[in-house]
Amino acid sequence: MSKKDDYERELEKLQIELVDTQAWAIEKGLKILIVFEGRDSAGKDGAIKRITEYASPRQTRVVALPKPTERETGQWYFQRYVSHLPAAGEIVILNRSWYNRGGVEPVMGFCTPQQHEQFLKDAPRFERLLADAGTLIIKLWLDISKEEQAKRLEERIEDPLKKFKVSSLDGEAQARWDAYSAARDRMLDETHSGHAPWTVIATDDKKTARINILRHILQRIDRPGSKSHKPDADIVFDADKCRDRLAK
Amino acid sequence: MSKKDDYERELEKLQIELVDTQAWAIEKGLKILIVFEGRDSAGKDGAIKRITEYASPRQTRVVALPKPTERETGQWYFQRYVSHLPAAGEIVILNRSWYNRGGVEPVMGFCTPQQHEQFLKDAPRFERLLADAGTLIIKLWLDISKEEQAKRLEERIEDPLKKFKVSSLDGEAQARWDAYSAARDRMLDETHSGHAPWTVIATDDKKTARINILRHILQRIDRPGSKSHKPDADIVFDADKCRDRLAK
Amino acid sequence: MSKKDDYERELEKLQIELVDTQAWAIEKGLKILIVFEGRDSAGKDGAIKRITEYASPRQTRVVALPKPTERETGQWYFQRYVSHLPAAGEIVILNRSWYNRGGVEPVMGFCTPQQHEQFLKDAPRFERLLADAGTLIIKLWLDISKEEQAKRLEERIEDPLKKFKVSSLDGEAQARWDAYSAARDRMLDETHSGHAPWTVIATDDKKTARINILRHILQRIDRPGSKSHKPDADIVFDADKCRDRLAK
Amino acid sequence: MSKKDDYERELEKLQIELVDTQAWAIEKGLKILIVFEGRDSAGKDGAIKRITEYASPRQTRVVALPKPTERETGQWYFQRYVSHLPAAGEIVILNRSWYNRGGVEPVMGFCTPQQHEQFLKDAPRFERLLADAGTLIIKLWLDISKEEQAKRLEERIEDPLKKFKVSSLDGEAQARWDAYSAARDRMLDETHSGHAPWTVIATDDKKTARINILRHILQRIDRPGSKSHKPDADIVFDADKCRDRLAK
Repeated sequence: MSKKDDYERELEKLQIELVDTQAWAIEKGLKILIVFEGRDSAGKDGAIKRITEYASPRQTRVVALPKPTERETGQWYFQRYVSHLPAAGEIVILNRSWYNRGGVEPVMGFCTPQQHEQFLKDAPRFERLLADAGTLIIKLWLDISKEEQAKRLEERIEDPLKKFKVSSLDGEAQARWDAYSAARDRMLDETHSGHAPWTVIATDDKKTARINILRHILQRIDRPGSKSHKPDADIVFDADKCRDRLAK
Repeated sequence: MSKKDDYERELEKLQIELVDTQAWAIEKGLKILIVFEGRDSAGKDGAIKRITEYASPRQTRVVALPKPTERETGQWYFQRYVSHLPAAGEIVILNRSWYNRGGVEPVMGFCTPQQHEQFLKDAPRFERLLADAGTLIIKLWLDISKEEQAKRLEERIEDPLKKFKVSSLDGEAQARWDAYSAARDRMLDETHSGHAPWTVIATDDKKTARINILRHILQRIDRPGSKSHKPDADIVFDADKCRDRLAK
Repeated sequence: MSKKDDYERELEKLQIELVDTQAWAIEKGLKILIVFEGRDSAGKDGAIKRITEYASPRQTRVVALPKPTERETGQWYFQRYVSHLPAAGEIVILNRSWYNRGGVEPVMGFCTPQQHEQFLKDAPRFERLLADAGTLIIKLWLDISKEEQAKRLEERIEDPLKKFKVSSLDGEAQARWDAYSAARDRMLDETHSGHAPWTVIATDDKKTARINILRHILQRIDRPGSKSHKPDADIVFDADKCRDRLAK
Repeated sequence: MSKKDDYERELEKLQIELVDTQAWAIEKGLKILIVFEGRDSAGKDGAIKRITEYASPRQTRVVALPKPTERETGQWYFQRYVSHLPAAGEIVILNRSWYNRGGVEPVMGFCTPQQHEQFLKDAPRFERLLADAGTLIIKLWLDISKEEQAKRLEERIEDPLKKFKVSSLDGEAQARWDAYSAARDRMLDETHSGHAPWTVIATDDKKTARINILRHILQRIDRPGSKSHKPDADIVFDADKCRDRLAK
């Protein structure tokens, strides 16, 4: 995708398709849950923006929960997310999710190793309940390289428009790169399932990534009569084929 | 328990014990969930009142959800209950619960047979997640006889203080007695588990029932140093021993 | 009201009347807000219990808010109360209310003098908006004597059933008696209004107080055809006649 | 503002300024409420997008409430908005607001004339309480001409990306143009106040409007040391100077 115009033309085509697909999903009463995960600066916000840009405001919610309160810390771990789950006809996008406990929390020491283990057991069982209740679960791992992340984190610091993107944890993203990789690998291994599969998207090229994320979502929702939007196989791939690729 | 004074003396003793037990549970950060189920007029409200009478107002909640809204009807079935689950240090009492879908809903045709089946599969898995997260789950089936229910429902109609207890569904309780029994039997069979067992309490004698419910709850919370409060074995019994007894 | 039986007979009569009155209020879609204020141990909980005992569980809520969170502290002062206000057909009972800022907060130094002054100006304006929107506002000041309070606070400490009633602030109730009196006098003076009047009830005799509170509430809701339930003039009186009486 | 590049350069400059201003507002604990009102297609969504694009996600909320539920319809009219009001350090943007009752509701017959009158009296009193509690209230009326609205509404219908913007009420916007004008004039007259003034922005030229909305907001928040961002006097003007201009 070299030329700007190609990207914008393709993006618009997919966004139109998404509008029609959401109209159909509303009519059918589908419950759609899209989980965005990935390292800091992997491109979550930008991709989400392209999904919601023309979406139905009443039936679309982006949820980015703040740090849990003290009371929430003493609740069932999934509890504070449950109130945001989609009702019939709704699309809910989680910008980071319960998978905090599969990544940042164990890496940064914000949970105990036991809580981490328990989470890896619980997540598939919890998602199974949602899937059995008819929720379509799309879990996306946005995969950025170490070099690209370093570049983006640096640019952020200098960009006066990105002041609120800079976080005190940013420094740790590079310093603990390998710990994050290890946590991700366990997470993908143990929480990838038939009812709630992980899909990995390479995001070093932002535009290509966004196009492919949209194609993948359209493919998963699978509106009858929708033309095929096949994502590029080397950009979007199943988590179970992922270990080797990521290792490349 | 023949004399009024004996009942009141024993009740007070148990309520004092419950106050101390809750103080300990708050300190320990226990999450305690007590589910009250049973046919109409089986004595749920009266028993709950004796539990909450001297309980800590900040750490105790009684939850009796109204009929689901249309939007809730399109959500994951357990969703609207989850926001009420206990945080650390809290006791939550559900006055009727998700088990509506194991009783009144299938009997009255408020859910489809498929939803009923799905529920019977889901409930133990859902409760398993809560139990694994450290929630103590106490599920009580208050068991009233057909004759006693008939008597109470009639008295209600004539008692001007019980106007708000009378419901348009009351007539069905007797008319569909056997269907309710069959639903209960399946529910007890399929949702009784080690992590969330059912306990059945005979409630034709209200006072004896209340005493034994309190004893059972104290036994389950099991504060160290608390003296034993053994419920009467012919009043309170495990659901797995229940079929025969109930058949008696 | 000397004999126990007289009290119970009269109480039951009033509770039956309240049931009928609430049924009528539900049908008419009235919004009823009852504010219970008064010094510690003045009898709020006991009186509220008699009101809600046979009330419609769906249309009655007792609200006792915990200390504000840090985020709530930075909100409009009335904000956290507003979400609990009654909808059509509902009775909401506030067990302590925004009037915390007219009493315990200034006396204990939990708010600034400016916040106290602002509150005294705001409360009538806020209540005016509610009243103009058709909310019936019943504000009750439960008035206990210094001696009776001292007695009750002491009894509490020794009563194992009242463990959760004992508060670390109890000692201040007597120590700062006069400051509380002064705060109450200003509060009654400045927030008594035609649309949301204060009514004072002497509560040293608990039973007489409860009877009269019920009578007063019935009188205010004023169901057509309801027989007159005139409270005793020396137990229940208007706040504007209150200064002298309280000074007695 | 003729050339695209000029617009984008000025927009970016103002957005950078807004980032710094919000950082300051967070630090100072300001409560900022921005109300966007205006006829259908007047440019609310587009303007809001430019404000929130680089704003702090944790401290910024856009609130667009759906139609009230039946229960909400029986509540105090302002109740469902109150829970969204800004806490200290927060910016809340209302995309349509309680002013529905000053425009679409009376024009379309969704409220009674009495409710309309009551609202016009209540709104300034309600806003006065918020302003006295330290909330900075910025009320914007986005003013579009009849011709421009006609054009935009038509374009919408043909744009496959704007499917979810098309509403069944769109036809009424032109058909009842004069009734909407009359309602707006009364609303501006009766709810314009020193503590919560209306500002009118001409929006037939979208880009110029956005630039001026940002300038106006920066001017109102008025961070010390911020350079002056004076809006164009013929694009942005006070509501009290508004009748004549609008009549032009």
